[in-house]
Amino acid sequence: MDMSVLWDMSYGVYAVGALDGERLCGCIANSAMQISVEPPTIAVSINKENFTHEVLTRTGRFTLSLFSEQNAPLDITYLGFQSGRERDKFAKVEHGITPEGLPFVTDNACGYLSCKVIGSADCHTHTVFLAEVTDAVRLSDNKPMTYDYYHKVIKGKTPKNAPTYQGK
Amino acid sequence: MDMSVLWDMSYGVYAVGALDGERLCGCIANSAMQISVEPPTIAVSINKENFTHEVLTRTGRFTLSLFSEQNAPLDITYLGFQSGRERDKFAKVEHGITPEGLPFVTDNACGYLSCKVIGSADCHTHTVFLAEVTDAVRLSDNKPMTYDYYHKVIKGKTPKNAPTYQGK
Repeated sequence: MDMSVLWDMSYGVYAVGALDGERLCGCIANSAMQISVEPPTIAVSINKENFTHEVLTRTGRFTLSLFSEQNAPLDITYLGFQSGRERDKFAKVEHGITPEGLPFVTDNACGYLSCKVIGSADCHTHTVFLAEVTDAVRLSDNKPMTYDYYHKVIKGKTPKNAPTYQGK
Repeated sequence: MDMSVLWDMSYGVYAVGALDGERLCGCIANSAMQISVEPPTIAVSINKENFTHEVLTRTGRFTLSLFSEQNAPLDITYLGFQSGRERDKFAKVEHGITPEGLPFVTDNACGYLSCKVIGSADCHTHTVFLAEVTDAVRLSDNKPMTYDYYHKVIKGKTPKNAPTYQGK
């Protein structure tokens, strides 16, 4: 059994943005994908220990920002490597706010999706949230950042709670 | 609402292999991702009209082959653009058979995962199958084929039943 094969699956780099009362929160996700075209739905896998998991379960609303190769790696550091329980993760990240009050990453991102949770599937350490895309806004024509690019070009690390954590 | 933002999500190119009695079947998938590390689980989105959907629902077993940039584009044509209801899709595709009798694509693929369905989530036209990875075998160190590479370099098309179909 050579688990390194799993590391050859391809992903993008995304920021999940959510709203805890009046407080902005979120996290970094790479396991996100489109499920159906009509109506447009996506799935995203979130670790149950993440504060964002708690907020998504409670509010059912989030944004998914699509990072481009021009996004500052620090955006990933701020959103992915500290907990929203203690910190305002968006304080140092260039962001906008949707009409519903949800944060999304600007700073050269490709764009963002506004999402409404329509279902979920429990899967051990993670929950797969299924969500309908209620709005989609393009912010740039930059090249989408792949997870591979983040690792190999930016030399980025993976948080311990990520579905694709490789133990190093 | 600019749905083209959804097209900037990143994916790999995968073949799902399944067994209908003694008959090999399968399809092409791009919406597949890892969900948890321990135990290793993945999710894959399959259109309900696909014959493979029927077989996965019935048997609960499948392989996921990870295509590399060296895979013949014809593998995608054979597995993705005809129905397993009428044809032996693997007849012209270089493949191997797992101990459980499931087909996987060889022909320069990065490797394959043997998967056992542990749950599913209904999502309009598609079902998201959650599956535990029971085996993982590396076949090559070739560069994984991304969906973007398939579109832009190979100039590949997307079957109508794909989660990411763009209507052209």
